[in-house]
Amino acid sequence: MMKSTAIAHPNIALIKYWGNLNDEINLPANNSISMVMSGVSTKTTVEFGSKLNNEIIINDKKATGEKARRVDDHIQRILKLDNRKTNYKIVSKNDFPTGAGLASSASGFAALTVAACDALAMKFDTRRLSIIARHGSGSACRSIHSGFVEWISSQNSEDSYAEQIAPEDHIDLADLVAIVETHEKKVSSKEGHRSAINNPYFKARLSELTKIIPLMRNAIKNKDFQTIGELAEHDCLSMHSVMMTSNPMLLYWQPETIKVINKVVDVRALGLECYFTIDAGPNVHVLCRQENADEIKEKLKSVKGVKDIIVNNAGNGTEVISDHLF
Amino acid sequence: MMKSTAIAHPNIALIKYWGNLNDEINLPANNSISMVMSGVSTKTTVEFGSKLNNEIIINDKKATGEKARRVDDHIQRILKLDNRKTNYKIVSKNDFPTGAGLASSASGFAALTVAACDALAMKFDTRRLSIIARHGSGSACRSIHSGFVEWISSQNSEDSYAEQIAPEDHIDLADLVAIVETHEKKVSSKEGHRSAINNPYFKARLSELTKIIPLMRNAIKNKDFQTIGELAEHDCLSMHSVMMTSNPMLLYWQPETIKVINKVVDVRALGLECYFTIDAGPNVHVLCRQENADEIKEKLKSVKGVKDIIVNNAGNGTEVISDHLF
Repeated sequence: MMKSTAIAHPNIALIKYWGNLNDEINLPANNSISMVMSGVSTKTTVEFGSKLNNEIIINDKKATGEKARRVDDHIQRILKLDNRKTNYKIVSKNDFPTGAGLASSASGFAALTVAACDALAMKFDTRRLSIIARHGSGSACRSIHSGFVEWISSQNSEDSYAEQIAPEDHIDLADLVAIVETHEKKVSSKEGHRSAINNPYFKARLSELTKIIPLMRNAIKNKDFQTIGELAEHDCLSMHSVMMTSNPMLLYWQPETIKVINKVVDVRALGLECYFTIDAGPNVHVLCRQENADEIKEKLKSVKGVKDIIVNNAGNGTEVISDHLF
Repeated sequence: MMKSTAIAHPNIALIKYWGNLNDEINLPANNSISMVMSGVSTKTTVEFGSKLNNEIIINDKKATGEKARRVDDHIQRILKLDNRKTNYKIVSKNDFPTGAGLASSASGFAALTVAACDALAMKFDTRRLSIIARHGSGSACRSIHSGFVEWISSQNSEDSYAEQIAPEDHIDLADLVAIVETHEKKVSSKEGHRSAINNPYFKARLSELTKIIPLMRNAIKNKDFQTIGELAEHDCLSMHSVMMTSNPMLLYWQPETIKVINKVVDVRALGLECYFTIDAGPNVHVLCRQENADEIKEKLKSVKGVKDIIVNNAGNGTEVISDHLF
């Protein structure tokens, strides 16, 4: 039976992906470095067969429009690798609320890639799976691997994939995601990536990153928590600076974003080491040592406007599992 | 009698001053452009005489420490221009609350310069007064003139002064300052200016400004409100990007800052043209046409956390007045 199910986790970038060399096939302008988020996941079942009718169900709803088109494109891309033509059914489910502002495209396209390739009995190594997942959504390529991951920038599609820097149990790092109230209309990341290219601050960012990326890679290898945190915080502010100075301006922060940033700065000043990083949205990821996670979680809970806190360690890569969703 | 009183207004930069070529005598790294704020002022009386005892009273309090030292340095600098040595008494008063987060050093050093020079009967033109005021506080040089003002960057002290671009009645532009709650410890601008120099984003900013400054100058001359607003908003985000990416990070925004930014974006989307700009603090200046000022003021008042709104038009330069403070 051509049916398989995979589970994948989102990832939080410590060095961000923003801006492409090639928007069509997601070739990034810079290397990025991330940690897999153990606390949240996407499960996806893919079945192929001529009697199926290309149904796509995401979070219990039939997918339509742009969302369905992106999934269909990805499935056709994978079928083409095997010179096959057939129909499919896809059911995918996140274990985190859609409205939480957590990007699900990384875990979504990683799980879809692994489940589809497995259903077709295509035995690819993780490098190949990473390249395939990248075509669906850039940062999905990082969710193929477990632990701490670096995605390589290249002009050449075959050379732009993610690889593991360190396994999931390498450092006792926790990522507490403070989910904040969202009042705001979301600006598409796709558009944002495009607007970066002509921004002079983007060029400054790329030039600075050539120095920062090896520092972050080494800090992870050396389990140097302080350097990881300081570089992640700076890189988050660097990416958001590029966003804010783009035309049109992309300001993803909300009042609660600043509240959590201020709390992190205060907690750190009190001697409890933690650092913030923020993706293209208003939620704040707080990096800390696992031994301090409970105490810092309580402090973040006290911030008005924080709706929920998701606790992550460095998680697993994308895996085939046996319990199908249909 | 060697006694004189002057009144000066703060100014709001449409193109910001951030970073120096020379920190000691405030030679800025870039030209900046500002509007004098008619709605707030500083009044300063200076008297010279051998029987006085170098008393400095600011907002009804005896000034001490760093604050007193800066004022004394400035007075000694002015006395030296005339090769004089004598004692003084200075009384200065703002008509806006000190805790409001409005920078008073621009109006303070402009009023101090003009009152001191007048008390000593030193007849300087506005260019010379602007250069003297600059030594006390960089942006004070812009408050010497009325209306819309440009401060020229130069390696040479004699060539770094402000001059008027357009008089106060040239455009019907209003600046509504939304005063927000401040929870935060203030980071000194002096330190901030220093940290900019090694920041790669600062270099990107300086390079972009060579294009933007003539555009802003022309927009003011041409009464092109939309271009003034769009450039001011972008430049504010550009300066705050440099601040955020400095080491240590300078994040002057508060949750209420984002609330007001969001309100400005919403009000503009509804067709009521307005733009934001933010100095090195959490307050938001909202630029709009005078005919819309009342309506926009009401909308800003509805934002939770906005304590007060100060309404400004383009104001007068620093003037000698007859009613002394003592």
